[in-house]
Amino acid sequence: MSLDTAVQKPHELLATTLAADLEAVNHLIRARMASEHAPRIPEVTAHLVEAGGKRVRPMLTLACARMFGYEGEHHQKLAATVEFIHTATLLHDDVVDESGQRRGRPTANLLWDNKSSILVGDYLFARAFQLMVETDSLRVLDILANASATIAEGEVLQLTAASNLATTEAIYLQVIRGKTAALFQAASEVGGVIAGQDDATVAALRIFGDALGVSFQIVDDYLDYGGAGTTLDKNVGDDFRERKLTLPVIRAVAQATDEERAFWVKTIEKGRQDEGDLEHAMALIEKYGTLEQTRQEALRWAEVAKSAMASMPEHPLRDMLIDLADYVVARVR
Amino acid sequence: MSLDTAVQKPHELLATTLAADLEAVNHLIRARMASEHAPRIPEVTAHLVEAGGKRVRPMLTLACARMFGYEGEHHQKLAATVEFIHTATLLHDDVVDESGQRRGRPTANLLWDNKSSILVGDYLFARAFQLMVETDSLRVLDILANASATIAEGEVLQLTAASNLATTEAIYLQVIRGKTAALFQAASEVGGVIAGQDDATVAALRIFGDALGVSFQIVDDYLDYGGAGTTLDKNVGDDFRERKLTLPVIRAVAQATDEERAFWVKTIEKGRQDEGDLEHAMALIEKYGTLEQTRQEALRWAEVAKSAMASMPEHPLRDMLIDLADYVVARVR
Repeated sequence: MSLDTAVQKPHELLATTLAADLEAVNHLIRARMASEHAPRIPEVTAHLVEAGGKRVRPMLTLACARMFGYEGEHHQKLAATVEFIHTATLLHDDVVDESGQRRGRPTANLLWDNKSSILVGDYLFARAFQLMVETDSLRVLDILANASATIAEGEVLQLTAASNLATTEAIYLQVIRGKTAALFQAASEVGGVIAGQDDATVAALRIFGDALGVSFQIVDDYLDYGGAGTTLDKNVGDDFRERKLTLPVIRAVAQATDEERAFWVKTIEKGRQDEGDLEHAMALIEKYGTLEQTRQEALRWAEVAKSAMASMPEHPLRDMLIDLADYVVARVR
Repeated sequence: MSLDTAVQKPHELLATTLAADLEAVNHLIRARMASEHAPRIPEVTAHLVEAGGKRVRPMLTLACARMFGYEGEHHQKLAATVEFIHTATLLHDDVVDESGQRRGRPTANLLWDNKSSILVGDYLFARAFQLMVETDSLRVLDILANASATIAEGEVLQLTAASNLATTEAIYLQVIRGKTAALFQAASEVGGVIAGQDDATVAALRIFGDALGVSFQIVDDYLDYGGAGTTLDKNVGDDFRERKLTLPVIRAVAQATDEERAFWVKTIEKGRQDEGDLEHAMALIEKYGTLEQTRQEALRWAEVAKSAMASMPEHPLRDMLIDLADYVVARVR
């Protein structure tokens, strides 16, 4: 497969191709996270923004504008907007999840405090909307305001669905849309909007971004139960320990015998986890084949993303985005 | 003084006059805080939104549109927007301040948890932007995005300025603009904008809202040191105990002898507060007359608000807003 032999991974190739745009985006981010009076703001923001994230979301916006020959600068503002919204949600997530590490470094809530993470997140969110307003597009504002609401709603849903065995696949899908797909979708969509594309094209970009994000998150949830491809930077069993209901478990719970159900009630609902319980959970997941099913779901969503993108006019960036969808699921192939 | 004999206080008279609008706003708030899938969201929001706040901010928007004869419905959406932004900041504030009570009731972070307060606040903020987008006015979006950034920046500034004796009056003013005046200002301004008023008129509304908010917050800071008019619902000394630098202290610190400075360093900077320290702080404030100066500042800002509003065309709502500025400082007269 070409992915294995290529010198650059798809997101690296995108970064190379979009280098000038990305530099402008980074410049914008640094300029807009500044605060004349509150130096804590750029400190906290820089810690996260410059921690070496892959900038996948802003690249979606840049690529989805440039592939239609867009020559303005609004796509850079929107890419910075998307990164600000993403960073704001990470800051708040780390407080909510009481995380101590992200991307291999201590989290902001650990280095400073929860208060700073909450308030700097709020600041970045407001700055994101200021940037959007500068693009003079109400449609873009509508898309990103909707995405922001979906993100927050998904987070609340995850909070209340955690440890609840009644969580359905529909709720799971809404949670992962909030966690990941809503911003992937909006990031792709606004690229096409700012490039002046018609409704059908924008709808295809929306489907692409959504399916890419869903696929991305399902892969994550798959690897959490130690599927093939799990690497050292992923702690197997985190979701189980945090009593999160992800697809492999939801489907195993749906088919559980009385005895198995009692196990899930004890470990997930009541949170009483003993030595060997993770292994037993993985055995049940194996018994019903739900980890393999989860893998298939990830592949299926990646195919949806690819075919939506394949319907776009030919362009090197289009092909890189198709490769990106392949790459997202490459770890589970 | 007419204020003492009037049957209705100015904000009550505004509420009576704007009753139909306010009902529509309350309806909008209830409709937009709903979440199909995450019932936690309306629970948390209702706890705060329906706790009997005076709705001063949304009334500013309604009044500043209606006094120019505005007959549309966008002002109601903007009033709901303003209340959503206010509620979102209260939810986050209570987490940051680790508060247990607001408006005489347990806070949301106490009844549910910090996580819910953070995420529901984020949701309301996103919903606020969705509402704004529906007014089709980029100018309104610009004003409220700027206000949101000022609010968050002011909060971060307050966090880092707390217990810092180097806090200047300029920083103090920026903090109280973030805490209170930025949203008062934006709420007033967008009323005029949506009613299609010219730049000079909108500028006057901006000055009115800002000065009203600054006055409102200075009164609060004055009463915290037990000025005349302090009532039972205000705990004297809270700011001292929380080591917040407000105007009476900032000015006393600026004139402190070496011995007095050592006292401020111990109690505010190092936070070592002993029996009798609050009384000593109040004696120093008395010595330099800074509590009286603070009172004068509040009155001065109220006059700024009144004269800005007096430059507007005659209208009963205009007069109520002028009376509102008087009422804000009535407790310190």
